[in-house]
Amino acid sequence: MLDAFFKPNAVAIIGASQSPGKLGYTVLANVIESGFRGNIYPINPKASQIYNLKAYPAVADLPETPDLAVIVIPYNHVPNAMRECGEKGIKAVVVISAGFREASVEGMERELEVIEIAKKYDIRVIGPNCLGIIDTYTPLNATFAAGTPPQGTIAFMSQSGALQTAILDWSLAARDLGFSKFVSLGNKADVAETDLMLAWADDPESHVILAYVEGVPNGQEFIKVARQVSRKKPILVLKSGVTESGSRAVSSHTGSLAGSEAAYDAAFYQAGVLRLDSLQELFDNARAFANQPLLKGDRIAIITNAGGPGILATDMLERQGMRLARFENSTIQQIKDGLPDAASAVNPVDVLGDALSDRYAAALELVAADPNVDGVICIVTPQAMTEIVETANAIGKLSQRLDKPVLGAFMGEERAKAGEDVLASYGIPNYKFPEHAARAFAAMRDYVEIRDRPDPEMVRFDVDQDAVKKVFEDVRAEGRVSVGEAESRAIAKAYGLRLPQSELAATAEEAVKVADSIGYPVVLKIASPDILHKTDVGGVKVGLGNASDVRDAFDLIVYRAQRYVPDARIWGCLVQEMVPTDGIEVLVGMSKDPQFGPLVTFGLGGILVEALKDVTFRVAPFGREDAEAMLDEIRAHSLLRGVRGRPPADREALVETLLRIGQMVTDFPEIVEMDINPLMVYEQGRGAVALDMRLVLKS
Amino acid sequence: MLDAFFKPNAVAIIGASQSPGKLGYTVLANVIESGFRGNIYPINPKASQIYNLKAYPAVADLPETPDLAVIVIPYNHVPNAMRECGEKGIKAVVVISAGFREASVEGMERELEVIEIAKKYDIRVIGPNCLGIIDTYTPLNATFAAGTPPQGTIAFMSQSGALQTAILDWSLAARDLGFSKFVSLGNKADVAETDLMLAWADDPESHVILAYVEGVPNGQEFIKVARQVSRKKPILVLKSGVTESGSRAVSSHTGSLAGSEAAYDAAFYQAGVLRLDSLQELFDNARAFANQPLLKGDRIAIITNAGGPGILATDMLERQGMRLARFENSTIQQIKDGLPDAASAVNPVDVLGDALSDRYAAALELVAADPNVDGVICIVTPQAMTEIVETANAIGKLSQRLDKPVLGAFMGEERAKAGEDVLASYGIPNYKFPEHAARAFAAMRDYVEIRDRPDPEMVRFDVDQDAVKKVFEDVRAEGRVSVGEAESRAIAKAYGLRLPQSELAATAEEAVKVADSIGYPVVLKIASPDILHKTDVGGVKVGLGNASDVRDAFDLIVYRAQRYVPDARIWGCLVQEMVPTDGIEVLVGMSKDPQFGPLVTFGLGGILVEALKDVTFRVAPFGREDAEAMLDEIRAHSLLRGVRGRPPADREALVETLLRIGQMVTDFPEIVEMDINPLMVYEQGRGAVALDMRLVLKS
Repeated sequence: MLDAFFKPNAVAIIGASQSPGKLGYTVLANVIESGFRGNIYPINPKASQIYNLKAYPAVADLPETPDLAVIVIPYNHVPNAMRECGEKGIKAVVVISAGFREASVEGMERELEVIEIAKKYDIRVIGPNCLGIIDTYTPLNATFAAGTPPQGTIAFMSQSGALQTAILDWSLAARDLGFSKFVSLGNKADVAETDLMLAWADDPESHVILAYVEGVPNGQEFIKVARQVSRKKPILVLKSGVTESGSRAVSSHTGSLAGSEAAYDAAFYQAGVLRLDSLQELFDNARAFANQPLLKGDRIAIITNAGGPGILATDMLERQGMRLARFENSTIQQIKDGLPDAASAVNPVDVLGDALSDRYAAALELVAADPNVDGVICIVTPQAMTEIVETANAIGKLSQRLDKPVLGAFMGEERAKAGEDVLASYGIPNYKFPEHAARAFAAMRDYVEIRDRPDPEMVRFDVDQDAVKKVFEDVRAEGRVSVGEAESRAIAKAYGLRLPQSELAATAEEAVKVADSIGYPVVLKIASPDILHKTDVGGVKVGLGNASDVRDAFDLIVYRAQRYVPDARIWGCLVQEMVPTDGIEVLVGMSKDPQFGPLVTFGLGGILVEALKDVTFRVAPFGREDAEAMLDEIRAHSLLRGVRGRPPADREALVETLLRIGQMVTDFPEIVEMDINPLMVYEQGRGAVALDMRLVLKS
Repeated sequence: MLDAFFKPNAVAIIGASQSPGKLGYTVLANVIESGFRGNIYPINPKASQIYNLKAYPAVADLPETPDLAVIVIPYNHVPNAMRECGEKGIKAVVVISAGFREASVEGMERELEVIEIAKKYDIRVIGPNCLGIIDTYTPLNATFAAGTPPQGTIAFMSQSGALQTAILDWSLAARDLGFSKFVSLGNKADVAETDLMLAWADDPESHVILAYVEGVPNGQEFIKVARQVSRKKPILVLKSGVTESGSRAVSSHTGSLAGSEAAYDAAFYQAGVLRLDSLQELFDNARAFANQPLLKGDRIAIITNAGGPGILATDMLERQGMRLARFENSTIQQIKDGLPDAASAVNPVDVLGDALSDRYAAALELVAADPNVDGVICIVTPQAMTEIVETANAIGKLSQRLDKPVLGAFMGEERAKAGEDVLASYGIPNYKFPEHAARAFAAMRDYVEIRDRPDPEMVRFDVDQDAVKKVFEDVRAEGRVSVGEAESRAIAKAYGLRLPQSELAATAEEAVKVADSIGYPVVLKIASPDILHKTDVGGVKVGLGNASDVRDAFDLIVYRAQRYVPDARIWGCLVQEMVPTDGIEVLVGMSKDPQFGPLVTFGLGGILVEALKDVTFRVAPFGREDAEAMLDEIRAHSLLRGVRGRPPADREALVETLLRIGQMVTDFPEIVEMDINPLMVYEQGRGAVALDMRLVLKS
């Protein structure tokens, strides 16, 4: 897939120039100097020969059809060049030229035109407005970058070409940062992250996929594709971009809780993507995946010639939820036998400041052979007697025989550098700060958990979609988008949610009649399509124990509602069964994320919702495992397991509610916001009851 | 202060050796090669001349009394050498030799002996078991390190000498990492962090104090000294060390909530110390403080030649609670006038990929002159046309005229390096990752907040200490350490806390009598010194509305208590006023931290305590501002300000309770644990009532 881009038979450079300094010159020079083995065709109507190659006035004149064309001409000529490529039968085009969506409204139209042409001729397009693409194995450098990065196993894509120039510059100096692919996506008019992920999933030259992303317009597709690809190799993403969440109109609890960042976190988790917080973390972690075997567990051994750095690495392991390996007694004894008395044979192993390479070799051999060790960090501080190069060699040689990952933490600069080079030759990444090696191991542990995650078990319940459609039609017929409580009840019932017994009463006398049939005590709630937060207007009365109380409450509630919201249409009051209050109040909600679609929320409910914001999210649809995980992700999770003698909550009822809501918001994309708050969950076996539910439809 | 160490008239090296490779040789060589201008006296009974210097058999033989002696002889000779120094009148000794507290029990005794001798002769000691000390201005390098770090304004102390060797190695390669002092503290037998902080507080050569710390045994002293010094210059600390918090016996809520990390966080906050999470952060931030002026606000401008890195820096600023500066309209217009159309004149200013140094200069000049800008980050990606060195020069020159800090983010490696060197010559630190520049600005903002913090206003209430003493005596007289509820009431009253009316009833009939006098409804609680968590044994009954209910509840509670805790001494039941339940349940507690002493906790109370762990901490004594800040530090802080139509809580009552508890645990260091849970706080003006209180005394 996309082989026409990365392994083309031949390349045409449309806009190849003979003037050094021009982009068209740099791109051609890069293609040639990268050692590309196919035919290279400079296209330039004003030259017959460029850089010792025969130049052609147009692609129509080429003696063969190249798989790939690179366009580096002014934007107004791009559509025409695309058409010529199409006529010639070229199937892959990289548009480096800028002046499209990123520039102006006319540019946006021009970009749409390019896409039209591409569709017509069945051309795939990378760009426009990009740096170009590199494949270090083909080899092919079709960019205007200042050089080709070293060969390696990292496949990198980026929405920012400038960022790539900086990374290229790093890679040229670093010894352990090599790339298989290096792609600038530009405006992503056609080829996007998902296309490259699929293309690289089975590429043996790429061990890890890296992406710098500013936005994911095709959110649901992204989740689907990434989930599939992340089973095969790790995907590390740096997502940047501050969103103006304030600009979205938000009226529900859920909406105000779910910022765009929460959506990205949930979506990336579901997609099996490792999200990093900074450029440094992105590349630090990538280097660990590039050539080291994966961790099989989370138990790490540390070997060090100084106490302090060993503690720093231990701290970071602990902060990341990793474990310091506990060695077998026999391992400890053997380490003791091989080290001076003052050394530490327990983890972290301190081989002491005067350790030569032999002590490191002995310690690593023993530690790596211990069945309780899943990975090793070798810390080397440059002390007076330290043999930097020999130690790196000893570690490197040994690591070749191991199926456990080994990371280096040779600290310092001048003296460490020599060791870093040696380690790199064995595929061992080095970290100048031992904390970063620990963090890289944590990323590896995270990836292994992702890879081994079962496929989400998508559950479908038998529901009554027609009933819901009917309610929505009625609501819309009245020109409304917000769905009142009485209407919400019908929807909840159709999707199998449990509700308290409830009936609408238009008058106080009707309310008494209903209460008599439900049984006392009851709750009265204002029924109005125009009042969303009932308690705010004194629209709720609980614990009404007899007919007289119900009568008084009805009058009071209606009076208050009219006073606070003078224009409200008031239907009367809902008379509800007073459900037991010995449950835990939680919230289940949904808001619509512009990139990922329906985002379902679970968290602590009641008045604590806004104070604590103790919530977690999933993009719908999601599986049973996700629903179960959500219960454990809130900070108050132990409350659901039972604390201080309280019985555990009915978790199954919560899981089912989450899944039913996930199904509802997937079935009805017109629902833009939804809250059940509170959902009262009782002890195991007693289920959960939705006490209040509201929905807002797309306007 | 400590001038004898850093600016000595002369130095004796006891154990100076003529064999290269020996520590005594390296130390002597370093002293000489560092350019020390005073007399240097090698002490070695077996040599008459070392390194062209006359050697002396003993310090007694010296022609003058040097201020400083450095001891590098085997540990068993150290006490004797100390004595000789004392007799000669030497007042400052650095003991490099190892084999003391860190090695064995005998070593510990030897260390105590050294301290005895030091006290007798009034000698200050750095070490033992350390790398030595460096002052780059004197200049003096009295260490066995492989070189002297570049001169600069960072004063660094470390408990790990090996870590310093790595940092030294870095500093030799980096252009913007220079030190004024470089001290290895070793075992801290005498001179500790606090001594150096005081000594460096007024040192004009040191702009920022850095410390790598593994433990702070003198916690209260540390807070006092650091608070004082941090008004004069920033103190940045990396604290490492995983504590076995599980090993501490903990029986209260508070105790289990307050790990040692919480104590460090609270103490460092109160001390005005900036705590960093990693070595890299420590030095990244130190470089910003080293030569740049301080921020006057938190509004940052970014100038960049690429969008992506600008977004990354913006993200980090936002994550750190900093603000992107909003320029004046006139500034935006002027930037627009000076830049191409496609550039962005709003923050972040994008000078575009083809920007030469003039565009950076123009943008920086305008942006820095804007009154809404407090600091500037200049991001430079190495694109084809980028003028790295010229741009660095332009930024550097301009920055000299500014009283606002400027940080560089020249990205990449090979090409960036030249720019880095130029920036360094102007005192501008460079960050390879723009996120780190943003983080450094956040640290600066944090420091300015610390510096401007008012001194804590220590409040003392009029209390009845004698009443408390009496209770404690009674408790101890019974061989107990845990204080029951009835006894706790007396203590709470003595310290002015409000309690519900309550009386002990030994029989059911007495209980009815008490209830009659308090008024119904009442609460009954088991009264037993052996039952701490009353609800766990069914020992609490609420809402008892009449005499018959009280009688039944009494019998049931006592029966249950006897069944669950067969050996418990049961005094009867407390009959309590049923206080209104419309308040918010919070917790105030205290546990004893081994390093910092009484650690007071505030947080959400009731059953949520353990589920949410929503708590915050202060080391007592603390001032009114701290108590007020605690209310805002819990996640549920908005609950106290009133949410969803609920009235705000009586914050003043909470503040006063915290201050009174802070006073109590300071007055009575024998209190090792204390809980008030719940403390029910009502709306403003209605105060707070301690519903349940318990204490544990030191055993």
